[in-house]
Amino acid sequence: MSEKIKEPIIIVNYKTYTESTGKNALELAKKAEKVHAETRAYVGVAPQLAELAAVAKSVNIPVFAQHIDPIKPGGYTGHVLAESVKEAGAVGTLINHSERQLKLSDIEQIVKIARDHHMLSVVCANNPSVSAAVAALEPDMIAIEPPELIGTGVPVSKAQPEIITGTIKLVREVNKKVVILCGAGISHGEDVSAALKLGTQGVLVASGIVKAKDPYAIMREFAEASKK
Amino acid sequence: MSEKIKEPIIIVNYKTYTESTGKNALELAKKAEKVHAETRAYVGVAPQLAELAAVAKSVNIPVFAQHIDPIKPGGYTGHVLAESVKEAGAVGTLINHSERQLKLSDIEQIVKIARDHHMLSVVCANNPSVSAAVAALEPDMIAIEPPELIGTGVPVSKAQPEIITGTIKLVREVNKKVVILCGAGISHGEDVSAALKLGTQGVLVASGIVKAKDPYAIMREFAEASKK
Amino acid sequence: MSEKIKEPIIIVNYKTYTESTGKNALELAKKAEKVHAETRAYVGVAPQLAELAAVAKSVNIPVFAQHIDPIKPGGYTGHVLAESVKEAGAVGTLINHSERQLKLSDIEQIVKIARDHHMLSVVCANNPSVSAAVAALEPDMIAIEPPELIGTGVPVSKAQPEIITGTIKLVREVNKKVVILCGAGISHGEDVSAALKLGTQGVLVASGIVKAKDPYAIMREFAEASKK
Amino acid sequence: MSEKIKEPIIIVNYKTYTESTGKNALELAKKAEKVHAETRAYVGVAPQLAELAAVAKSVNIPVFAQHIDPIKPGGYTGHVLAESVKEAGAVGTLINHSERQLKLSDIEQIVKIARDHHMLSVVCANNPSVSAAVAALEPDMIAIEPPELIGTGVPVSKAQPEIITGTIKLVREVNKKVVILCGAGISHGEDVSAALKLGTQGVLVASGIVKAKDPYAIMREFAEASKK
Repeated sequence: MSEKIKEPIIIVNYKTYTESTGKNALELAKKAEKVHAETRAYVGVAPQLAELAAVAKSVNIPVFAQHIDPIKPGGYTGHVLAESVKEAGAVGTLINHSERQLKLSDIEQIVKIARDHHMLSVVCANNPSVSAAVAALEPDMIAIEPPELIGTGVPVSKAQPEIITGTIKLVREVNKKVVILCGAGISHGEDVSAALKLGTQGVLVASGIVKAKDPYAIMREFAEASKK
Repeated sequence: MSEKIKEPIIIVNYKTYTESTGKNALELAKKAEKVHAETRAYVGVAPQLAELAAVAKSVNIPVFAQHIDPIKPGGYTGHVLAESVKEAGAVGTLINHSERQLKLSDIEQIVKIARDHHMLSVVCANNPSVSAAVAALEPDMIAIEPPELIGTGVPVSKAQPEIITGTIKLVREVNKKVVILCGAGISHGEDVSAALKLGTQGVLVASGIVKAKDPYAIMREFAEASKK
Repeated sequence: MSEKIKEPIIIVNYKTYTESTGKNALELAKKAEKVHAETRAYVGVAPQLAELAAVAKSVNIPVFAQHIDPIKPGGYTGHVLAESVKEAGAVGTLINHSERQLKLSDIEQIVKIARDHHMLSVVCANNPSVSAAVAALEPDMIAIEPPELIGTGVPVSKAQPEIITGTIKLVREVNKKVVILCGAGISHGEDVSAALKLGTQGVLVASGIVKAKDPYAIMREFAEASKK
Repeated sequence: MSEKIKEPIIIVNYKTYTESTGKNALELAKKAEKVHAETRAYVGVAPQLAELAAVAKSVNIPVFAQHIDPIKPGGYTGHVLAESVKEAGAVGTLINHSERQLKLSDIEQIVKIARDHHMLSVVCANNPSVSAAVAALEPDMIAIEPPELIGTGVPVSKAQPEIITGTIKLVREVNKKVVILCGAGISHGEDVSAALKLGTQGVLVASGIVKAKDPYAIMREFAEASKK
């Protein structure tokens, strides 16, 4: 990660919601691009694979895959090849989201594959101890998301600040550089501010944006959040 | 499946080969389209997801996903939603390929999801007994592929004809309608003819086409194969 | 299965409940043995693996494993070998329980391994269509258990009799011989009677027995259930 | 781990070999016990679950499970409950062997469950980076085993000493206390000596003992290995 990325970092995980599928994928990305253009905040989107190329071609913000597999080109029917998503325009990938958990050795291999292809690796972790383990694998970013808060609208940065601070402490003992995001329940600008104050550099967010009545407004609110 | 599909049915599984990734995906599809235009044989292609939309938009032949997940729209990061691949242009999907094997109850659910979305379901099976089990789930097509022959160039239709005939016998006891394809090691027109003579209606093929020096020539050879 | 087995067949799945772990495993088996001795009903138990040998050595009723893996002797750390559980005294095994679901090709292989070792195969299925698929694999028994009713105390035989009758119809089209059990929510003798009237030959039961105040009394009630 | 454990630590992973199944399980444990009695080296055995109780009851050396699941008592058919293997006599468990790899969050949870039940956790890792990640989870022991050397008779301590030293370096940055074992290809006393010299405290070994003509002689050789 370049040191110059303007905080907060906001990565919108499209998951497989209706609101972010098909044509909706592109519309949402256009709104994210607008927020980035207006605020210079780092706003990335992680659409489904079938919409990834169209999104990447149409907007000038970072596009992530939601998952890639620990494979090289070859006979891997139904798997996700780094080369393929990169050529489609992805600059990085989520890894080990709580809805797509992976074996430890696969996480390690995917982080390495991402590095070899100059793709950003954003590894999700469900608690401080797992975050520390992930930190040892030297990904570009860690996103800490307590699964019990995902989709609840209860922000981890407020409900369980000790998870965030505990994570940061453990992670920094192992890895000084990795960017730390938090997620789960983030739906207001103040949740993002709270997350930044606790020491994270941004958020990984899904339903809080994708299922919002006005995703543009919420992303704008997020982008303007600060530590103050 | 319409009764009027002109045999042989040829479905080209792109897997995650370099030769079928990125721009290569579209080039190969164009060749498949040419073969279809010249011979009227049913030639479908199953690219990776990140290339699926571009391929489907550019050619007038059936495009398949290599896999979809047993999910409805919702929080399923990193999974493959039927609605998404359908909107991208897929008319069907491979299911349970030997390189992407699934739990039985998931196969059942995916076949149902495909049916609900008017997508063709092509379920792979590794032996006659498994094929019979699959037949009970009433997919549109079964592709029988002994894993030990995949990628070998040794055609199942010649090396183990009894697997094909045994499969057809068991499948027909359970299901009269399902289309039966065979795969693994198919690389010459005569392998396709052999498969048709044994009672299949076509082939699922990967490296035999994708990694061929002249994929067009081989597809053309396949398309002209007959029971004679 | 011998034709002479006295119905109802009752198989008690111990799962990993406290009430059936350690010394409790043997106590429960002794009660099951008593019920068998008094009623001649077929009462089998499926304890955890670490208690299986002690249970099998101490009682004279059929003992089942809860799972075996599709492996032969070799390098499979942490897996369950048929030879091992058989030598420990198991006469059969559950396969594909909804809490331990398996890939289709693995189910097929395990059924074959069980047959090769003269062990009874009891394959679980979650709906009629999956049951039909399982029937094609020719196991000794199928246990149909709608997962949404497991552990509820709402008996499938009463809440969803059409699932049972639908299953029996589909299964018999594919397989005339397989013994059909039902499970999920069975907790009274009348639930067993209802299951028998619908055409099953017995039940696979867990919490209804294991967590009962008086497991002996409930097993006895089950054993005396009849089609009348 | 008590500080007083006499090195080398030798843990014999029985896997699912014929030579360590059924009655053979106990015979092999008796030999291990003899070696321990004669040399005071730490010799543990990890039999299959169905033989675990009988082995633990008959010998006075540490007995390990080969795997436990991240579960509490409840409805987990076919899974391995810590309480059950502990009551059967296990003092610890292998976790994440390369033949039974686990999701990262499951490893974390199992290590915690083992700790809560005062059981030793021995987590396997396939390379230095994965070992460092495991170290962050604070298990009692890490066993580094390059999968490509498992079962080859080519000792990791000689073929790839840099893997061992690299692992130790990375692990110690994260965790000062964890005991480090190595495995894969260990079949002679000198392989154990080499492993100790590189800074490990012992070995996790399988076929080198289990499939040896004279397992007692080899274990004895191992037990007498030293850094000299």
